[in-house]
Amino acid sequence: MREICLIGIGTGNPEHITLEAERAIRQADLVLLPHKEDGKAELAHVRITLLQRLGVGPERIAHFDMPVRRQHGDDYGQQVDEWHDAIAQRWRASLVAHSMAQSCRVALLVWGDPVLYDSSLRIAARLGLSPQQVRVVPGITSMQLLCGAHGIALNDIGAPFLVTTGRQLQKSGWPKGIDTLVVMLDGQCTYEQVCEPDADIYWGAYLGMPQQMLIRGKLADVKARITDQRRQARARHGWIMDIYLLRRRPA
Amino acid sequence: MREICLIGIGTGNPEHITLEAERAIRQADLVLLPHKEDGKAELAHVRITLLQRLGVGPERIAHFDMPVRRQHGDDYGQQVDEWHDAIAQRWRASLVAHSMAQSCRVALLVWGDPVLYDSSLRIAARLGLSPQQVRVVPGITSMQLLCGAHGIALNDIGAPFLVTTGRQLQKSGWPKGIDTLVVMLDGQCTYEQVCEPDADIYWGAYLGMPQQMLIRGKLADVKARITDQRRQARARHGWIMDIYLLRRRPA
Ligand SMILES: C[S@@+](CC[C@H](N)C(=O)[O-])C[C@H]1O[C@@H](n2cnc3c(N)ncnc32)[C@H](O)[C@@H]1O
Ligand SMILES: C[S@@+](CC[C@H](N)C(=O)[O-])C[C@H]1O[C@@H](n2cnc3c(N)ncnc32)[C@H](O)[C@@H]1O
Repeated sequence: MREICLIGIGTGNPEHITLEAERAIRQADLVLLPHKEDGKAELAHVRITLLQRLGVGPERIAHFDMPVRRQHGDDYGQQVDEWHDAIAQRWRASLVAHSMAQSCRVALLVWGDPVLYDSSLRIAARLGLSPQQVRVVPGITSMQLLCGAHGIALNDIGAPFLVTTGRQLQKSGWPKGIDTLVVMLDGQCTYEQVCEPDADIYWGAYLGMPQQMLIRGKLADVKARITDQRRQARARHGWIMDIYLLRRRPA
Repeated sequence: MREICLIGIGTGNPEHITLEAERAIRQADLVLLPHKEDGKAELAHVRITLLQRLGVGPERIAHFDMPVRRQHGDDYGQQVDEWHDAIAQRWRASLVAHSMAQSCRVALLVWGDPVLYDSSLRIAARLGLSPQQVRVVPGITSMQLLCGAHGIALNDIGAPFLVTTGRQLQKSGWPKGIDTLVVMLDGQCTYEQVCEPDADIYWGAYLGMPQQMLIRGKLADVKARITDQRRQARARHGWIMDIYLLRRRPA
């Protein structure tokens, strides 16, 4: 293999693709396409539609089933490690099955941007390639869409912001001295437990997709509504992806 | 005016434009184009070339001179406020000069993404439009390019990261419990003063542009080299834009 290209494709809006991403997809000799059993058929559909539009036929697509991460035990780091090993193994098997020669370009379509809470770079690192052989093509992230859709900046003027996960927020609370948090990967509605009634929350789900949802307001006023709407939407669509920004007044 | 559209155009690589951004530029009735006296002619050139490629002729471009921010005094917030007022005033004057009717779409080309350390949203808020009339088109940010070019993720697995400015890092130091910092807007080489000799630094300048520079390594080992190369590059090109990521081992 000559190069593996991790291509950010944005988070649902087909118009958020860049010219560089389009070109990289067109030039790929093989696109690795993971299948997950998570009911998110729409997300697979976004990828398939994109490949069709760019003229990537079935002969250039290698489908593979995503392994499932072991979820029991409290060795989270070890679980993730094993899981990445298993995925790298599937990538390798796909390459062998498609007898990819030395000179081939292999591509992966990554949700959002490969540098933001995504494991593709860590999996690619297991393939024993040189750094020059792993190429990242940036894509629009969910974080940008959230703020863009609400018409707000990520940062207050000259101020920092923290990007974190639901799990971390639960564990460490709202850190001192930082007044803006962007929270991703939160299936637990951790905002409900944040004791900052005057903070503002800007919440978004299915960003960039036809069913996009936005709610904003004082945390104390809207948190119940978010949880409620979130539950309903999840039931309706079978899945949900959401993200939010919390901002409090500087102390 | 019907709509003002703040269009993220990426940070120098013309291929980082999205289809949505291209469409928004093509559909604009008027593009406001600021001129700065900062020697960054190449940045103006990126914008002009993009407009030419998308067929936006001179009759659809409103040039205006960027006011300069008052830099004396220690009332930074007030300085920024006055400056944003002055810019909004120029926008208004341009619209009047081009007698933009009720139904017009006005566009601004924003470096990177309008939601990241950019004032366009705050200036647009001064025009007295409804929130529906201000539209944000996301663009690839320098933060993404930095990590993509170095082939690293912004975050450690499941871990948070802080996005901050040189000024803030100088003032507040490296916050406890957060092991990754992305530092923007740092003309002072603040990394030199960070007392974490074992931390890794990933530095990049002119990202996405032909003269792109990348340096990485242990902070203690490479900081002098970064400062040196930075100074030379700045002298050579007449300007520099750089950004870096610092990562230390969790305590
Ligand atoms: C594994 S991370 C991947 C992030 C992705 N690489 C990016 O650049 O946005 C998945 C998390 O991203 C956020 N996310 C991704 N796509 C989203 C969307 N369309 N709407 C809302 N949140 C989204 C959610 O917080 C979700 O839990
Ligand atoms: C006023 S902020 C604008 C950020 C922009 N909106 C974005 O999305 O990247 C300017 C800062 O962004 C960073 N930056 C912007 N373009 C860059 C580039 N091409 N290379 C390196 N850093 C860049 C630098 O830290 C610079 O001081």
